[in-house]
Amino acid sequence: MYKMEANISIIPVAGVSVPPKVGREMRPDSTIVNVGGIEFGGTAIVVIAGPCAVESREQLFETGRAVKSSGAKMMRGGAFKPRTSPYKFQGMGEEGLKLLRELREETGLIIVTEVMDTRQIDLISSYTDMIQIGSRNMQNFPLLKEAGMSHKPVLLKRGMMSTIEEFLLAAEYILNQGNDQVILCERGIRTFETSTRNTLDLSAVPMLKQLTHLPVIVDPSHGCGLRWMVPSMAKAAVAAGSDGLIMEVHNKPETALCDGQQSLSLEEFEKLMNDLRKIAVAVDRVIL
Amino acid sequence: MYKMEANISIIPVAGVSVPPKVGREMRPDSTIVNVGGIEFGGTAIVVIAGPCAVESREQLFETGRAVKSSGAKMMRGGAFKPRTSPYKFQGMGEEGLKLLRELREETGLIIVTEVMDTRQIDLISSYTDMIQIGSRNMQNFPLLKEAGMSHKPVLLKRGMMSTIEEFLLAAEYILNQGNDQVILCERGIRTFETSTRNTLDLSAVPMLKQLTHLPVIVDPSHGCGLRWMVPSMAKAAVAAGSDGLIMEVHNKPETALCDGQQSLSLEEFEKLMNDLRKIAVAVDRVIL
Amino acid sequence: MYKMEANISIIPVAGVSVPPKVGREMRPDSTIVNVGGIEFGGTAIVVIAGPCAVESREQLFETGRAVKSSGAKMMRGGAFKPRTSPYKFQGMGEEGLKLLRELREETGLIIVTEVMDTRQIDLISSYTDMIQIGSRNMQNFPLLKEAGMSHKPVLLKRGMMSTIEEFLLAAEYILNQGNDQVILCERGIRTFETSTRNTLDLSAVPMLKQLTHLPVIVDPSHGCGLRWMVPSMAKAAVAAGSDGLIMEVHNKPETALCDGQQSLSLEEFEKLMNDLRKIAVAVDRVIL
Amino acid sequence: MYKMEANISIIPVAGVSVPPKVGREMRPDSTIVNVGGIEFGGTAIVVIAGPCAVESREQLFETGRAVKSSGAKMMRGGAFKPRTSPYKFQGMGEEGLKLLRELREETGLIIVTEVMDTRQIDLISSYTDMIQIGSRNMQNFPLLKEAGMSHKPVLLKRGMMSTIEEFLLAAEYILNQGNDQVILCERGIRTFETSTRNTLDLSAVPMLKQLTHLPVIVDPSHGCGLRWMVPSMAKAAVAAGSDGLIMEVHNKPETALCDGQQSLSLEEFEKLMNDLRKIAVAVDRVIL
Repeated sequence: MYKMEANISIIPVAGVSVPPKVGREMRPDSTIVNVGGIEFGGTAIVVIAGPCAVESREQLFETGRAVKSSGAKMMRGGAFKPRTSPYKFQGMGEEGLKLLRELREETGLIIVTEVMDTRQIDLISSYTDMIQIGSRNMQNFPLLKEAGMSHKPVLLKRGMMSTIEEFLLAAEYILNQGNDQVILCERGIRTFETSTRNTLDLSAVPMLKQLTHLPVIVDPSHGCGLRWMVPSMAKAAVAAGSDGLIMEVHNKPETALCDGQQSLSLEEFEKLMNDLRKIAVAVDRVIL
Repeated sequence: MYKMEANISIIPVAGVSVPPKVGREMRPDSTIVNVGGIEFGGTAIVVIAGPCAVESREQLFETGRAVKSSGAKMMRGGAFKPRTSPYKFQGMGEEGLKLLRELREETGLIIVTEVMDTRQIDLISSYTDMIQIGSRNMQNFPLLKEAGMSHKPVLLKRGMMSTIEEFLLAAEYILNQGNDQVILCERGIRTFETSTRNTLDLSAVPMLKQLTHLPVIVDPSHGCGLRWMVPSMAKAAVAAGSDGLIMEVHNKPETALCDGQQSLSLEEFEKLMNDLRKIAVAVDRVIL
Repeated sequence: MYKMEANISIIPVAGVSVPPKVGREMRPDSTIVNVGGIEFGGTAIVVIAGPCAVESREQLFETGRAVKSSGAKMMRGGAFKPRTSPYKFQGMGEEGLKLLRELREETGLIIVTEVMDTRQIDLISSYTDMIQIGSRNMQNFPLLKEAGMSHKPVLLKRGMMSTIEEFLLAAEYILNQGNDQVILCERGIRTFETSTRNTLDLSAVPMLKQLTHLPVIVDPSHGCGLRWMVPSMAKAAVAAGSDGLIMEVHNKPETALCDGQQSLSLEEFEKLMNDLRKIAVAVDRVIL
Repeated sequence: MYKMEANISIIPVAGVSVPPKVGREMRPDSTIVNVGGIEFGGTAIVVIAGPCAVESREQLFETGRAVKSSGAKMMRGGAFKPRTSPYKFQGMGEEGLKLLRELREETGLIIVTEVMDTRQIDLISSYTDMIQIGSRNMQNFPLLKEAGMSHKPVLLKRGMMSTIEEFLLAAEYILNQGNDQVILCERGIRTFETSTRNTLDLSAVPMLKQLTHLPVIVDPSHGCGLRWMVPSMAKAAVAAGSDGLIMEVHNKPETALCDGQQSLSLEEFEKLMNDLRKIAVAVDRVIL
């Protein structure tokens, strides 16, 4: 569990203004976010795994059973996908949600899936344990407000060109509506470097942990965009103090309809989980 | 009117993939977008002016009458405002829309205002001549699709973190639903430089004009964020080949509820319009 | 000639600290830099043209005669070239300097060439009218100090990663040694956008003109890296208030040993000069 | 010791061109760089510590004795300092070099110090075990060539706005002159984020380890610029696969003439070394 540094008051070197509801000043104790019985923000580190998009029953269940067996507690999988091009696979829609619910019933895996439209929140909330607001919607203010009015935990991903301050203000929109069950996720920012898909900003982890009481997790898959690099960055995230990880895992990465290049195979994920347990111990934590 | 360069085929030095419906390859002639009788994309350069947000009848009408008298053909003004902080003025809502419609009736100024939520499109469309999709929503794909199904012209602003290729793909979402009345707007990108609010990327103007048949305009107000700098950048935009300008003008910039620091006063706007006419002539165009 | 805005004192929105010798506060009048009889910083706009690198007598003289005939007053050409790869052409060295001097004698064109090493300053100064410190050396502090101790005018290019404040501080190093004959050059900064070589930051022109008394010119060739785009950006630079332009021109761009993709042909340069004269008039200036 | 992944051939997703002498293709085994008997690039992780600048005998020796006692094997300390402003402390010069040599004699600590000027290489080489080429000089090509002709190991820091490809090409300049004793250092890149001094790009560690046989170390001090954050990022760097760390440590950070805000105190450094030993074990390595 992250221990706030004593010298927190000298942090805002660049003048980060921390809004009141997400800030530690008026709420110094770390918030525990409970998602279907799983706690984020305590001593244990939680791993979320699964495919970029739900593609089929076979793909989802084969991947789900395997990641559960390797130790993941939660499953990710997109039913409505934000795609840069209108000609790319846009997700299975409600059919995908139904498959996620079935998987939950069979395996006990808790589910998170993305919402992109205020009109979808009720539908998606009825199928899932946590709703995700993706990077491209981090400043979709009507969506943030609706998420704040829902009773679901929210996984809020940092915009790829959003400052720490803007990220906190986006979370404040949700808390300001009465929902404090928010998990922040660093997933890489856009820089001039092109050899990786984004630049994973791991300094966001200690920075956010100092400034806010909310849990902070890391998405190394989108952060680097390279399957072979994900393990190194996942280990680094845990060493940096992350409260969890969300990673893309696919039973057949080479044929994935989305993000196959950055998805771990089932075997790679299992090996990584073993390595992560060792890092967690070295920073006085455990993988849940 | 922009003349496409002969050597267009060698452009994509960095491998910009231009999607089919917005690209010039299958549609080499420039598209003229007609907004309430005003044409964008022809020889004439169109100027849109007005406040960041509609604040009151007095503010709106005083500003509107003045910018019309100085030569603006269209009025901008936000009724629903995307604000980084939940504690900032969020706009007058439908009351603001009504004021905009009244202004239109009195002055004949054509109106553009921003939409942030799929649920608002019908309402906003019923009041306005053109709907704006702002930078933070450039990759709000449900909103792009809805805008594509509407029968309104769309002003699509480049995301502050978006490449030229992503910008074109966002426009493709709209055209792909059957609406080709789309105007692209460069409004500054986010870089490491902090002395200006954003870095206005004027090279986007010739680049977009080469790659797409859609009209391209520039927003120097958000581009630099500094009132005194707006005239220089507006002139540069016209010299670079822009089909229009959208600028923030306020009757009392120092008391504006939003973006006062980058809003021109009525006198500054009038002087600028005179200067712009000279630049337009120098590039064989006219200010409408 | 640039007229300083009255509200200069409110400029530093982002807290730009302007050092004393380059700042306008203690020296409000614009400095005129005289390079071999040519004045930078007054009403007239000066155009510098020439190849990236001196490659041969034929190349240099054919290009030089043509750009002079089109109206350029100064010639650029590298004898010692900073190249990202050690396997690329590194320049002709002193042989190139001799050719530049011969060209000067024949045509009267004033010469600027780059210096990369403190050990070269005396040699290069003996051949040229102005020494250039390139982007990659903008924070080469020993070189800045040596340039400050020389009696040559200095063309200082903005680093591709440098803020306006760092740019001014680099110039301060030169003035601090007693040499105030410094011309600043915006040449594009590095951003996430990859369709252009760099992102030409034209807002740097009005910003620098407000903050410093030194002349400011623009290099659109490196700014966009695309030959067909250079004319648009050169025109925009003049409209934005630039005191001059430095552009790559080559008698045979397609066979250039360096930067051919961004070099104008002799015909393109001649046409552009005619277009620039019209823009200059529209902003109450002339092309020298 | 880093184990090259089997799928190295599919790495260059963004088309990184790896030059021949630094690339793993023609030299798959990791290079061990021997600095005064200390080996970089093997299983052991080496820690370099010390002040930004040598300020006085007392400061240097007090800091040196303490970091040695905590387990550092090498000492850093600048005698010639690159400073953004000409009015900041520029270093003690040769006097500082003499103090570093004395410290070496007393404590056995191996020394690295920065060189900024081709004219200084012989002098600095005569006092130190390894010469450092700093971020602002990563593309100072004459300096790279001179370093390549020297017989000293070279610590090459990544430019704050340099791509991985440019970084490798800069190292190639050194190897191309016959010196393969080069250590690469990631030290943070410049992005839009301003809450940290730079954005430490830890993905550069696995990326570089895949592409080149040279050792790779990390500088978390400049990477984040915040003393309290350095431990988190140092641990993350080790978890990511770094071969070493270089960190700023000062006996009195609050009165340091340079970079005090990012310098660890002697006590903080000692605690960090203990934590790092645990992380090293978790990734099957040891702190030397």
